[in-house]
Amino acid sequence: MTTEQAPAADWLQSVRWNSLEDRLDLLDQRLLPDEIVYLELTTSEQVWDAIKQLAVRGAPAIGIAAAFGVYLGIRPFEGSREDLLAEVGRQCDYLATSRPTAVNLFWALDRMRAKAASLLGASAEGSVEPEAAKQALLGEAIAIQSEDEETCRLIGEHALGLFQDGMGVLTHCNAGGLATARYGTALAPMYLAQERGIALKVFADETRPVLQGARLTAFELQQAGVDVTLICDNMAGAVMAKGWIQAVIVGTDRVAANGDVANKIGTYSVAVLAKAHGIPFYVACPMSTIDLNTPTGADIPIEERHEDEITQGFGKRTAPVGVKVYNPAFDVTPNEYVTAIITEKGVIRGPYSENLKKLFK
Amino acid sequence: MTTEQAPAADWLQSVRWNSLEDRLDLLDQRLLPDEIVYLELTTSEQVWDAIKQLAVRGAPAIGIAAAFGVYLGIRPFEGSREDLLAEVGRQCDYLATSRPTAVNLFWALDRMRAKAASLLGASAEGSVEPEAAKQALLGEAIAIQSEDEETCRLIGEHALGLFQDGMGVLTHCNAGGLATARYGTALAPMYLAQERGIALKVFADETRPVLQGARLTAFELQQAGVDVTLICDNMAGAVMAKGWIQAVIVGTDRVAANGDVANKIGTYSVAVLAKAHGIPFYVACPMSTIDLNTPTGADIPIEERHEDEITQGFGKRTAPVGVKVYNPAFDVTPNEYVTAIITEKGVIRGPYSENLKKLFK
Repeated sequence: MTTEQAPAADWLQSVRWNSLEDRLDLLDQRLLPDEIVYLELTTSEQVWDAIKQLAVRGAPAIGIAAAFGVYLGIRPFEGSREDLLAEVGRQCDYLATSRPTAVNLFWALDRMRAKAASLLGASAEGSVEPEAAKQALLGEAIAIQSEDEETCRLIGEHALGLFQDGMGVLTHCNAGGLATARYGTALAPMYLAQERGIALKVFADETRPVLQGARLTAFELQQAGVDVTLICDNMAGAVMAKGWIQAVIVGTDRVAANGDVANKIGTYSVAVLAKAHGIPFYVACPMSTIDLNTPTGADIPIEERHEDEITQGFGKRTAPVGVKVYNPAFDVTPNEYVTAIITEKGVIRGPYSENLKKLFK
Repeated sequence: MTTEQAPAADWLQSVRWNSLEDRLDLLDQRLLPDEIVYLELTTSEQVWDAIKQLAVRGAPAIGIAAAFGVYLGIRPFEGSREDLLAEVGRQCDYLATSRPTAVNLFWALDRMRAKAASLLGASAEGSVEPEAAKQALLGEAIAIQSEDEETCRLIGEHALGLFQDGMGVLTHCNAGGLATARYGTALAPMYLAQERGIALKVFADETRPVLQGARLTAFELQQAGVDVTLICDNMAGAVMAKGWIQAVIVGTDRVAANGDVANKIGTYSVAVLAKAHGIPFYVACPMSTIDLNTPTGADIPIEERHEDEITQGFGKRTAPVGVKVYNPAFDVTPNEYVTAIITEKGVIRGPYSENLKKLFK
């Protein structure tokens, strides 16, 4: 475990393959923003623990970490090609138990399984030696990571096309680089703008109750040198009224077939405020987040979380004992509030029922 | 100092004259909602301290406490009528230094001075003995308190006329009984409804950064048995979209001549959300809060507060060191969002420039 003043990369990378040491360096997100600590992981058990204990969060980042975990798990293995293939399966089964609800985790592990089968399975062509297969599986993990990075970069390119130098941009929650391989989704245009000397003035909602905006978004943008100002959620309307905001951009957990968008609680309020002030409201996400099998936002189940997040969210009680609390984790923003949805394939505008379907053809 | 499971009165009273013990019992608001502790004050120095140290907050409550402080200050005095009058002046001067910016404090002390002059001054009719004058000054303090209670009760009556049994009502910050003699302003209709068996379902915004909604509003309504649900500020839009809210009511720090309303930061966002959902937005305040000398909301200076309230408001750092923060204490809601202003004289609707002026004639 190392504590660093600044990350070794020129950006803050949540999952970092250290090829020099042949190990996984994982940013411990539980300690943010107080400390930047990279866990140095050399076994699949350590990766399992890190996922389980939430040292790594964000669906894409979890999947990427698990893929590297498979490689770390099989690295010490010695035996036949058949036995190595079985060992890959065991490692994937094991790592899949770390966070049983994370879809990206299963997706990444399935991809590692498929790669192993193509190299080592009965129908595999050629005869890759076990050591070479291990290296090919490490390569697959690296590919998963770089593809995610590319997806985010493309989202950022398309989104940046909607922004101009000097604009004020408001975001809610954290759809940033910490949750992905790099760049994030909603934060991707801010990183690209920074790289190119385009000045954006970002306002980050702190995002109660769990404060992802304060703890993660403000932190990662500050680290990257982006001009970011932290506000409480209830100040969004006031800064819009001041004329400080020219665009809102957020991530999403699921886009329904009609363009309704589920995202962190509070997103809907921001969308209504944006519309009232004539400010465009953009949603950034990879294609994989658009679910044509969910007809509308009403079909997206909204998780309700424990009252403690509101009544004693930071180790100190701030509300009376026994008070009733309503604590939904997400809300749904109806499609009429969504100016555009930005994916790696480009900018999609309404009517969404039609245009999202086209996108998948 | 006593710790009580429940207040001795059937409501939670921030300033309570204890005639049995001839002392002031003051609810220590710094300890809410964790503990209900009444400070037992017998000297003006103790009252000065309690105001200075914020044990009592809310402009009307501070004024009332100071008025009782004058009585406690002169109680041990022995001497002539002239000397007693001078002693009242000294006590008022002293208590006025406890919180130099609190307008209600000066108003209440001036009223105590005037009363003393009418009893003991050169032009005073009759010849009230010093001991009788002391009791009359205690009576004046009690009158200040009961007049404030009556003002709040009248506001509550007028506001309750706008509500119906079963309605969901959302409020922001704390304009409640803790800040006044009793009932509060925005919370007054909720207390009256409770007394009369009219069921309101109240939603209290927690009100970041200082959490007056969570710590005070949710607490005092819970104590009174009102059905109250605590939410984070960013959930207001989501509960409106669910159809749970039929009215919003808030207090105010100043109403401009054109009906623009300054109130706790976040009020403007709630007003915009209410309008977007077709929900009436009411402002409750005593006449003394309406300032015809302030033409519009743009003329109301907005205090900006320390970044620590946002970055480490819960006793723990929740944002990166050095991050930029914008922390306005108030915002202005333009008159077009205000459905009605409710004072002790009744319900005023727009055009406010005209109708507020009429009110003072």
